[in-house]
Amino acid sequence: MNKNHQAEPVYIESAMCPMPIRDRGTIILGHGSGGKLSHDLIKERFLPVFDNDVLRRGDDAGIVQPTLCTQLAISTDTHVVKPLFFPGGDIGRLAVSGTVNDVVVMGAKPLYLTVGFILEEGLEIGVLERIVDSMQETAVSAKVQIIAGDTKVVERGKADGVYINTTGVGLMLPATNISGANARPGDVVLVSGTLGDHGIAVLSARGDLGFETDIQSDVAPLNKMVLAMLDASEQIHVLRDPTRGGLATTLNEIAQQSGVSIVLEEESLPIRPQVRAACEMLGFDPLVIANEGKIVAIVPDAEAGNILATMRQFPNGADATVIGRVTAEPAGRVLLQNRYGSKRIVDMLMGEILPRIC
Amino acid sequence: MNKNHQAEPVYIESAMCPMPIRDRGTIILGHGSGGKLSHDLIKERFLPVFDNDVLRRGDDAGIVQPTLCTQLAISTDTHVVKPLFFPGGDIGRLAVSGTVNDVVVMGAKPLYLTVGFILEEGLEIGVLERIVDSMQETAVSAKVQIIAGDTKVVERGKADGVYINTTGVGLMLPATNISGANARPGDVVLVSGTLGDHGIAVLSARGDLGFETDIQSDVAPLNKMVLAMLDASEQIHVLRDPTRGGLATTLNEIAQQSGVSIVLEEESLPIRPQVRAACEMLGFDPLVIANEGKIVAIVPDAEAGNILATMRQFPNGADATVIGRVTAEPAGRVLLQNRYGSKRIVDMLMGEILPRIC
Repeated sequence: MNKNHQAEPVYIESAMCPMPIRDRGTIILGHGSGGKLSHDLIKERFLPVFDNDVLRRGDDAGIVQPTLCTQLAISTDTHVVKPLFFPGGDIGRLAVSGTVNDVVVMGAKPLYLTVGFILEEGLEIGVLERIVDSMQETAVSAKVQIIAGDTKVVERGKADGVYINTTGVGLMLPATNISGANARPGDVVLVSGTLGDHGIAVLSARGDLGFETDIQSDVAPLNKMVLAMLDASEQIHVLRDPTRGGLATTLNEIAQQSGVSIVLEEESLPIRPQVRAACEMLGFDPLVIANEGKIVAIVPDAEAGNILATMRQFPNGADATVIGRVTAEPAGRVLLQNRYGSKRIVDMLMGEILPRIC
Repeated sequence: MNKNHQAEPVYIESAMCPMPIRDRGTIILGHGSGGKLSHDLIKERFLPVFDNDVLRRGDDAGIVQPTLCTQLAISTDTHVVKPLFFPGGDIGRLAVSGTVNDVVVMGAKPLYLTVGFILEEGLEIGVLERIVDSMQETAVSAKVQIIAGDTKVVERGKADGVYINTTGVGLMLPATNISGANARPGDVVLVSGTLGDHGIAVLSARGDLGFETDIQSDVAPLNKMVLAMLDASEQIHVLRDPTRGGLATTLNEIAQQSGVSIVLEEESLPIRPQVRAACEMLGFDPLVIANEGKIVAIVPDAEAGNILATMRQFPNGADATVIGRVTAEPAGRVLLQNRYGSKRIVDMLMGEILPRIC
């Protein structure tokens, strides 16, 4: 090997990426032209990472045959989180996990993703590469394939580095009937772990907390755990991932869709002390803070033990616990009961307390 | 009726929307919170327009059962066109048409779309409503349903009103084998109409032409025409919509995928005089200007007459014509032959001449 060809990697500072990245150039408007530079970007940065037979054909749409004769679940989510990298994750991991989770909570096995990038002119290619690698790593761990993509470039200042849309297609499992409308009085409410970690981790990455914290985002694809839960019980009524708007918003949606009341026990809510402290300081209710790796399940009382045991077999479900019950009245309402038995109404998030959290 | 309740509509000026719109308020960050304001936006602005059974369920993913036992084509496209409204169309019509066309050129019947909005804080709700109405009108005319959606809001200045991702799912037609890799020496190249109309119409809406023109964008869903072509002949080898990068880029992609040469006849290229004049003034090659309502088909010589006749039955195919032939050599190259028989190489678009054209 000719030693002269082994250039030292050049490390440059990047506000968007916490780790040093090699200088690989930056995004220019031509990368969104649809012409030669777009082709090069796809060929050099995306295809080698997302590599699969469907993408490799290079046609206008990916063709797949998931399996025979079944229903599909299709979900879309756009990610604009700021900053792009945060403790425990990044926009790429978030974009894959978020859509995988939206599909699996329908009782469907996620199989395929499409990716739509909006890149800002001047974005460092090294930052894009790290995000693309993170997407593929997350996709592999979730066993989904990225089968189609699109890239647009907007002028400097017209985005924050990268916005990512992911759309997911999953195969409905036979004999599942999961819906936000299926909660029944007598059911119990389970959550797979601690609340508010993602929101506080992103705030901390923005320097908005004003103090140090070691909170990591929970962002993760949860399909393995959820598919195991569906395998363990055919009687799961509701599954949701309490992301933007937090647990409070998700449970209000379910209470309204099902026409029931949900009563949470304050003492049972799993919240890390650091998250609780941050929320108290900032005046936030941890119940409206976003999660990106948590599942809420509403199940018949008799099935709860079995389903909890299944959840706890997975690292993402180690802290799974019962947090409340479904009652008939007051229909459409979520209540929080404290240790003395008094109850207050828990509303959906009103307005916006944490923009650009996902 | 109490006349006092019939307030006069208030019309306000909007740089983004050429027609007067009622004052319906503006987008604020809370519309992207995932909480109450997001719910209101979806319930009041999106659901009534995109209304269908799948969306109405309000779950995290749309569930569909297209039909039994078949392959699916899935395609994604993000739209960042500037301005949002231009002669002959708008970003909503573009977002639906673009993805419908990407699916149908695979030989698939488009059935479902998902929509991901990125809205800019301060966007007038009236502008959003007009775009949403345009999307639904286009979706209805293309017979596709919008079955899932997502909305994010970014701060003022961090987008240009609206960016829209659409992802489309279509059902592969039996016995079709359409691919950019299927062009064969001896095939002829058809185009469904005039070239470059979309790009020049958008430039004109930006005021970048420096003179008046009556060019309208060709943006349209082409699935009816393409499905009729597929019905008329089972021997269509390649179908593509020559959007970003124009005909030159699309044909270079095909020449490379198929390992063939494509020879265009300069005299046969359908280009409106106004488009030709604008391109000459600006120093652009009309072959690299974007189209949003055109189809390129590569078919066996013997089938060309039949397929052309079918295309001409549709308003979008009235000017369909033969523009060139496929030869074996020089493989991977596109050539333009003038009336005297001399040839020049036609390259892919290099760099970016018209950012934000779609």
